[in-house]
Amino acid sequence: MNTSTYSEEPVIPQFNDVLAARERIAPYIHKTPVLTSTFFNQLTGAEIFFKCENFQKAGAFKVRGAANAVFGLSENQAEKGVATHSSGNHGQSLSYAAGRRGIKATVVMPNNAPEAKKAAVRDYGGEILECEPSTTAREAMLNELVEKTGADFVHPYNDHRVIAGQATCALELHEEVGGLDAVVAPIGGGGMISGTSLSMLELSPKTSIYAAEPKNADDAYRSFHAGKMIDDDAPKTVADGLKVSLRPLTWHFVSNYVSDVLLATEQEIIDAMFLTWQRMKMVIEPSSAVPLAVILKNRPLFEGKRVGVLITGGNVDLKKLPWM
Amino acid sequence: MNTSTYSEEPVIPQFNDVLAARERIAPYIHKTPVLTSTFFNQLTGAEIFFKCENFQKAGAFKVRGAANAVFGLSENQAEKGVATHSSGNHGQSLSYAAGRRGIKATVVMPNNAPEAKKAAVRDYGGEILECEPSTTAREAMLNELVEKTGADFVHPYNDHRVIAGQATCALELHEEVGGLDAVVAPIGGGGMISGTSLSMLELSPKTSIYAAEPKNADDAYRSFHAGKMIDDDAPKTVADGLKVSLRPLTWHFVSNYVSDVLLATEQEIIDAMFLTWQRMKMVIEPSSAVPLAVILKNRPLFEGKRVGVLITGGNVDLKKLPWM
Repeated sequence: MNTSTYSEEPVIPQFNDVLAARERIAPYIHKTPVLTSTFFNQLTGAEIFFKCENFQKAGAFKVRGAANAVFGLSENQAEKGVATHSSGNHGQSLSYAAGRRGIKATVVMPNNAPEAKKAAVRDYGGEILECEPSTTAREAMLNELVEKTGADFVHPYNDHRVIAGQATCALELHEEVGGLDAVVAPIGGGGMISGTSLSMLELSPKTSIYAAEPKNADDAYRSFHAGKMIDDDAPKTVADGLKVSLRPLTWHFVSNYVSDVLLATEQEIIDAMFLTWQRMKMVIEPSSAVPLAVILKNRPLFEGKRVGVLITGGNVDLKKLPWM
Repeated sequence: MNTSTYSEEPVIPQFNDVLAARERIAPYIHKTPVLTSTFFNQLTGAEIFFKCENFQKAGAFKVRGAANAVFGLSENQAEKGVATHSSGNHGQSLSYAAGRRGIKATVVMPNNAPEAKKAAVRDYGGEILECEPSTTAREAMLNELVEKTGADFVHPYNDHRVIAGQATCALELHEEVGGLDAVVAPIGGGGMISGTSLSMLELSPKTSIYAAEPKNADDAYRSFHAGKMIDDDAPKTVADGLKVSLRPLTWHFVSNYVSDVLLATEQEIIDAMFLTWQRMKMVIEPSSAVPLAVILKNRPLFEGKRVGVLITGGNVDLKKLPWM
């Protein structure tokens, strides 16, 4: 059985898996820069280190997990290809990684996904299967595909290989700057925050992990406070990468290792995004602005601290910006 | 007499001045990163190294020259402050540098300059003197100010201290990547191309220097081919940092050390700018897109070569983008 499909007892990745992932994916990813900004340090009273995964291959951190899954496959498995459902960065990243290994990637996408997103998957050599825009339709089509072709399902985040891959980002950040009091990362399905927890727990257990979430898609916030997983019901937020909900594996990390889940409104996210473009000259996607938005909103919590911020991606429609 | 005012016999900066500038300005500037892009390498057939001065303090390379001038002043001179005319990045940069030294900067700006540009100068502590929007009015007001206050005039580019400062950019690029066959930089007044020539002539004399210019502001192109300085008459281009004309000092470098001046149309500049934002996730100003535009247009010239590209700045009005 494929360990990466939804499972009642998820395989928890360990720190050794992170080190293995780093070796495995090194030839296929960028070691992204860590940038600082006097402006934002003054504005927040903190010392912020921005880990810039918007400069990553395929424009987002997602390529770390996807590459770890793809390049960890045995030859036999690899021959049958990989598959996923994603209308965003994970689909692109899996296509990119599969392309680099020379194997097939199939991405199940809703038939109303933007043309630009479909094009990005195809540009990297991925194949698209269109389905009705519902979770049921998506999962049914994916299961059918996996049964028929034997393709390996690489879930966007509820997969130990993916989380070990995402964890390499915090590993790099820690090695470059060290001594962080806190790391703030956006939370959608929880893949990045899980990987971050996994690395920091080993490398710097005193570092607090904060998850930054849109108020309009606050399933992690509600789950965190209820002590159990609660799904979002079709949330509407400009941070389109953060609409998905936690799954058992990411809930494990969120419930055990996250210090708090902090919320930001749509306007706060857009303002933080605009300010980042303006002052740091970086194209970041709305999801990546949520950490800065919550830091600005919770100044006393971060003042005087060394804070890592994970800028998760930079894939935006430049002709349709949220402040226009 | 102040050596930095227009002079019939300009003081030519030497490579030693560049090394001195590097030491002098190091505490006040960023050592900006050099980024690469598989996408652009494939698109151009060249190996391109982007030196990212859009991430520089005050958002542009101009701070290098301004800081070199400001921190090279004697205590006596410094007390009287510095002054310039600029409606763009140089005014901001001089204000920033003067602020860091704790001296006064006065910037003569046309009374129709955008509020955002005035605000940027003021934010760094600079004082603005408004004049009628003509070269005559601007120079008259500046001369009056210099006579009255004894402020040191730091010309945006026709100044040996400024050119030695800008030259530190190519110095860093060369030290980081080396073995470049060509460097391509935008040309307006010629400060950056002059500094680049100055550094590369010493460090890597076989490297060809190309100046990239908007077709709509082609005074350097026409000067280069006529063998004498020709002024532009109020050119209109989206690359607003490149509207100014060569002066004796920069003409010295352009006429002696530049391999060619290559032109790009407005649409080519906008396309290259858009593509850079989209694929490299960087906010660059239109001026900074001209080098990439001319490389795309003159593929055979750069194919198979190691090419340095100077991304000179990232100061744009995010609410008024040229492709909207």
